Amino acid sequence: MMDFLEEPIPGVGTYDDFNTIDWVREKSRDRDRHREITNKSKESTWALIHSVSDAFSGWLLMLLIGLLSGSLAGLIDISAHWMTDLKEGICTEGFWFNHEHCCWNSDHVTFEDRDKCPEWNSWSQLIISTDEGAFAYIVNYFMYVLWALLFAFLAVSLVKVFAPYACGSGIPEIKTILSGFIIRGYLGKWTLIIKTITLVLAVSSGLSLGKEGPLVHVACCCGNILCHCFNKYRKNEAKRREVLSAAAAAGVSVAFGAPIGGVLFSLEEVSYYFPLKTLWRSFFAALVAAFTLRSINPFGNSRLVLFYVEFHTPWHLFELVPFILLGIFGGLWGALFIRTNIAWCRKRKTTQLGKYPVVEVLVVTAITAILAFPNEYTRMSTSELISELFNDCGLLDSSKLCDYENRFNTSKGGELPDRPAGVGVYSAMWQLALTLILKIVITIFTFGMKIPSGLFIPSMAVGAIAGRLLGVGMEQLAYYHHDWAIFNSWCSQGADCITPGLYAMVGAAACLGGVTRMTVSLVVIMFELTGGLEYIVPLMAAAMTSKWVADALGREGIYDAHIRLNGYPFLEAKEEFAHKTLAMDVMKPRRNDPLLTVLTQDSMTVEDVETIISETTYSGFPVVVSRESQRLVGFVLRRDLIISIENARKKQDGVVSTSIIYFTEHSPPMPPYTPPTLKLRNILDLSPFTVTDLTPMEIVVDIFRKLGLRQCLVTHNGRLLGIITKKDVLKHIAQMANQDPDSILFN
Amino acid sequence: MMDFLEEPIPGVGTYDDFNTIDWVREKSRDRDRHREITNKSKESTWALIHSVSDAFSGWLLMLLIGLLSGSLAGLIDISAHWMTDLKEGICTEGFWFNHEHCCWNSDHVTFEDRDKCPEWNSWSQLIISTDEGAFAYIVNYFMYVLWALLFAFLAVSLVKVFAPYACGSGIPEIKTILSGFIIRGYLGKWTLIIKTITLVLAVSSGLSLGKEGPLVHVACCCGNILCHCFNKYRKNEAKRREVLSAAAAAGVSVAFGAPIGGVLFSLEEVSYYFPLKTLWRSFFAALVAAFTLRSINPFGNSRLVLFYVEFHTPWHLFELVPFILLGIFGGLWGALFIRTNIAWCRKRKTTQLGKYPVVEVLVVTAITAILAFPNEYTRMSTSELISELFNDCGLLDSSKLCDYENRFNTSKGGELPDRPAGVGVYSAMWQLALTLILKIVITIFTFGMKIPSGLFIPSMAVGAIAGRLLGVGMEQLAYYHHDWAIFNSWCSQGADCITPGLYAMVGAAACLGGVTRMTVSLVVIMFELTGGLEYIVPLMAAAMTSKWVADALGREGIYDAHIRLNGYPFLEAKEEFAHKTLAMDVMKPRRNDPLLTVLTQDSMTVEDVETIISETTYSGFPVVVSRESQRLVGFVLRRDLIISIENARKKQDGVVSTSIIYFTEHSPPMPPYTPPTLKLRNILDLSPFTVTDLTPMEIVVDIFRKLGLRQCLVTHNGRLLGIITKKDVLKHIAQMANQDPDSILFN
Repeated sequence: MMDFLEEPIPGVGTYDDFNTIDWVREKSRDRDRHREITNKSKESTWALIHSVSDAFSGWLLMLLIGLLSGSLAGLIDISAHWMTDLKEGICTEGFWFNHEHCCWNSDHVTFEDRDKCPEWNSWSQLIISTDEGAFAYIVNYFMYVLWALLFAFLAVSLVKVFAPYACGSGIPEIKTILSGFIIRGYLGKWTLIIKTITLVLAVSSGLSLGKEGPLVHVACCCGNILCHCFNKYRKNEAKRREVLSAAAAAGVSVAFGAPIGGVLFSLEEVSYYFPLKTLWRSFFAALVAAFTLRSINPFGNSRLVLFYVEFHTPWHLFELVPFILLGIFGGLWGALFIRTNIAWCRKRKTTQLGKYPVVEVLVVTAITAILAFPNEYTRMSTSELISELFNDCGLLDSSKLCDYENRFNTSKGGELPDRPAGVGVYSAMWQLALTLILKIVITIFTFGMKIPSGLFIPSMAVGAIAGRLLGVGMEQLAYYHHDWAIFNSWCSQGADCITPGLYAMVGAAACLGGVTRMTVSLVVIMFELTGGLEYIVPLMAAAMTSKWVADALGREGIYDAHIRLNGYPFLEAKEEFAHKTLAMDVMKPRRNDPLLTVLTQDSMTVEDVETIISETTYSGFPVVVSRESQRLVGFVLRRDLIISIENARKKQDGVVSTSIIYFTEHSPPMPPYTPPTLKLRNILDLSPFTVTDLTPMEIVVDIFRKLGLRQCLVTHNGRLLGIITKKDVLKHIAQMANQDPDSILFN
Repeated sequence: MMDFLEEPIPGVGTYDDFNTIDWVREKSRDRDRHREITNKSKESTWALIHSVSDAFSGWLLMLLIGLLSGSLAGLIDISAHWMTDLKEGICTEGFWFNHEHCCWNSDHVTFEDRDKCPEWNSWSQLIISTDEGAFAYIVNYFMYVLWALLFAFLAVSLVKVFAPYACGSGIPEIKTILSGFIIRGYLGKWTLIIKTITLVLAVSSGLSLGKEGPLVHVACCCGNILCHCFNKYRKNEAKRREVLSAAAAAGVSVAFGAPIGGVLFSLEEVSYYFPLKTLWRSFFAALVAAFTLRSINPFGNSRLVLFYVEFHTPWHLFELVPFILLGIFGGLWGALFIRTNIAWCRKRKTTQLGKYPVVEVLVVTAITAILAFPNEYTRMSTSELISELFNDCGLLDSSKLCDYENRFNTSKGGELPDRPAGVGVYSAMWQLALTLILKIVITIFTFGMKIPSGLFIPSMAVGAIAGRLLGVGMEQLAYYHHDWAIFNSWCSQGADCITPGLYAMVGAAACLGGVTRMTVSLVVIMFELTGGLEYIVPLMAAAMTSKWVADALGREGIYDAHIRLNGYPFLEAKEEFAHKTLAMDVMKPRRNDPLLTVLTQDSMTVEDVETIISETTYSGFPVVVSRESQRLVGFVLRRDLIISIENARKKQDGVVSTSIIYFTEHSPPMPPYTPPTLKLRNILDLSPFTVTDLTPMEIVVDIFRKLGLRQCLVTHNGRLLGIITKKDVLKHIAQMANQDPDSILFN
């Protein structure tokens, strides 16, 4: 295809920022590279070693990504834990201990009071030497808010000054990048450093956000940076995207301790081009990352997973009714959240609000902190809250949620039967209800601010609270009314029928599903958390219901909604294009436009071409046999054309404005005293994709998606008629969905 | 695209047997159907209900597939268990009890001797009223061989007489069908019935084969048959293949009790076109199937999985060395097995051998049974053997494999430290070594015979034996030489360092990986068996090594090798096409051939076209503007053309041989007294795929794969030059790989 006798001109075949890559060309280039190495490998031992090391470099890269992203995740976990506790007090034994570690080393504590030890000093103890009374409370309150504001201020300032791309969850942008778009610096080293630091700050500030989404971004940054060490991946945009898919899997793997779930998340939610080879490598990277994290052991309990749960009671078929109710709740919450959040983010983009990100973050942090402190369930970190909600009450649990009557009266073995709720449970229910309302409202305003913010944890918290409330309600119902028809067949008095922790888990899955519209990966992540196939059916029922309900109210998940809000050129692979339009309805030029700008293969001068380049902004031009016949020869990219002409004018003797440009294989013999010709066949793509004008758009969209095209030429009875670019396709899809087509362009 | 004013002619748009479907057209038709229903749904309530029920029919279908394939799997398990025991004896309490159930109901047994109860009578007890002595042994031996021969004879006869497609594992054919080929009856009801029955017979006959692969075939038959109940799937070949992908997942799910592994198997190994919507539905079907099977409870232990294992000892990093050794063994076995098995199958195809399938089966059965009976590890069913090999020796195990010295001397709690092997273990080692040799040799001759035969279980058995042998060896080494440098850092005397069961498991994964080249799905299936992330790393190390070793010795897995042996037109999606040929090197007509046969759009008579049809065998013809210009208008299929002309001659007044066929939109006004014209634009595909003659074949192959094309037209500078069909592509790939290109055609 290319003329390999000539040296390639530097710059030809690279891309500008905010451009779409040509998957076909990139993959083709990688195959050429591979072929060359394979052919050479037969020549010498050194070349053979090179060939083998090239083949294994992918695996090495995966190993490095796993190690690096696992370590970073561990670092983030440890720092966030310490800084979250810093809002409440400090350890006198050593300021670098968090609350839990501080009291581990203490000799003065019993198991019951394991949270209270003399080494750990709340701020009131440090400042006014007491922990009792209203004044101490106010001091602690004040310090809590102060630290929160400080962390939030640092986070937003660092993001604003050093790396604006470090904000948000990053998943919408990563999806766009993986689909073939180029955003330089989005996965660079500055983004990595600042995102890592500000993620810790943002999580510690107590805002209603999680670190799971941003961890995917961090892992992708690691992947992208490590790509630079390997020729194979540095120079090829398609190969690099394979690595990024695997890095995304590693990110989810460390976020939840779920390697299989991570791979499926990458496959289902993030990736665009996911060949099976990548599947296996992603799995490897995810596993290495998970085990690196485990050996760092940030939670201090040797557990791989964030929320380790072990349930012992089976569920009953009837319980599917409340599980499906939770699914409906999750779907409603998902749809509501997406609508209101997108509306708020649009307001931020279009009004004065967006100009003051620091103020916005500080105000939201202040409100969150002020409202959060008085309620212990909002004061604790959200992941701790979820962990407590998932937990099935055991004998030794001192939590208020487990304050049932007759708590130490176990009838058989260690199993706890359903019991009437005690005072603690009732007060916990009220507090949880308030927490639910606060989380629902504040998360809408938090997601999208100019700090790193993930959505998994807040969504799961909302669902877990709702689930636990329903679960406790069901439990009490079953206890007091075990003679009701719905209970009496399976729930005798004193039996352990209902596990409120399972309800919390199902609720969390439902809400997460409603917001993100994940399906298989969601269930697999939850399965990896519990480790038992037993509970897949409830989770699946809830996730399915939630997706159906949410889809009925709005087709897009939160990430797709943000992609559309930001106008990224992302061609959704999941949605079918359902309209009966034809290629001729979409192609440029439109019916009354001037004719398509084409180059001829052997009759245009350098000047003609330069005029066309300066007068148009098209990123490429079809080359035809002659203007009359309009028979297509090939396609040439604007960027390659400019670079080649510049290069020829500099280096090739005698190329002047009147030189004729030839795209043919052989230029005819020229009469003497004419300026030398310029042969540009080597930059001509001789296999441009074409469709006929009567091709249904559904097929065209399919081709664009599956082959990753940038543009496609349209012919009628063998004559070139027009061109369809990816942007035309995206605009057309938006138009058909009654959206503003101009919002599609990246801005 | 189609002229919807006219009624479609019956038969247009369907396929002949042994033809390849056109994915683009099928998907297009489904979208048309869907659009029509959606548009109508706004008109009346009834249409709305129809639209909703249409949307949910996919889920209903999945539910039915899950229920049916789960039930069939349970039925097969129970019957095979009973019939396997029938070879050894019968229960006097009721002949329908198998050995285990028979003794469950007995009052006369202790836990130690739970296998021996008076109700269970071996054949010698029934016939000569004793179980002791050489004569009784001979009677039992004789009966064992006799039953085996009877079962095998029944199996092969039923297959031969009623459903020849029921033989083999079915996975190569299912892969081919899913890639778009049509083999009528392969997934029909007769195949289902006969395969279910003969599978039980074949497994019970004691041959070295498993039921896992055939279960996938059975599940796909269920899927295909159930498709007939739903219009949406009955009439659309592409949609039906989505259902079959999900059914394959359900099949693996019930085979191993591993729903997630099943879905990944379908994705990685079997499926061709696997949209994400299918992923979620497959998961649902797999889960329903698994739970149906569990509620049938064929193993009598409430376990979902075939080989439930629970290990308690962690593994040490050093142990990766033996695990990798097992991986190498697995890879070598895989490569050896594939080569020898394919060579033997080729012999069967090409020599007289293939003409006597019944004799072949009987001979192999006789040899297997005669060699198997004396050795208890070959006499027991292969899945029982694997189960025993995976098992970690507990306190109560009475197996010979657990006959260690000081077996009841536990130092701490219930944990058993490493101990010196006793007499039983040594004799078990010898017997296992013999079993290994027998299994390796006999499996090569068994797989491919004309009975249902799966490969998973025999492969796993080979690996499990090798693994257990190595594991026990390591254990003894660690016990006697715990002062060696490799042991002394982690394995003190009296500690439980090595788990031989884990080695068996790793070996099984390695051998299965070597034969099938599964990767992620293999590890996930094994993960679902053990349920602990802990052991994924050993499994992954072994699976990776095994795949690398096996790939170095031969690129194809067993299924691909059988696809090639049988010449199915399967375009492998995983292998990259690595040669630098162009479309012009592959297209027909070749350089010196006569010109491409084309139709013109407005100048050929019915007779001209009929002559072309009768003189050629092409399955379609390009339509051009005129022979001189060779500008492409569209493509018409031979089958559609024949049906339409026949139909017109019958129904349309005055269409005679001299009528001119028009493919244009409007036929020009005709002079009087000329015969009426025949308009055939409605059968013309106006959007045929085209590539230029200079397109690299790697891109063409990619297009064929991703879009599922049947043919592609080749143009040069806008003029039609030739055609490439899927068979041309397959032939070319075979040619480039130095294989016989004619072997590609289905025969």
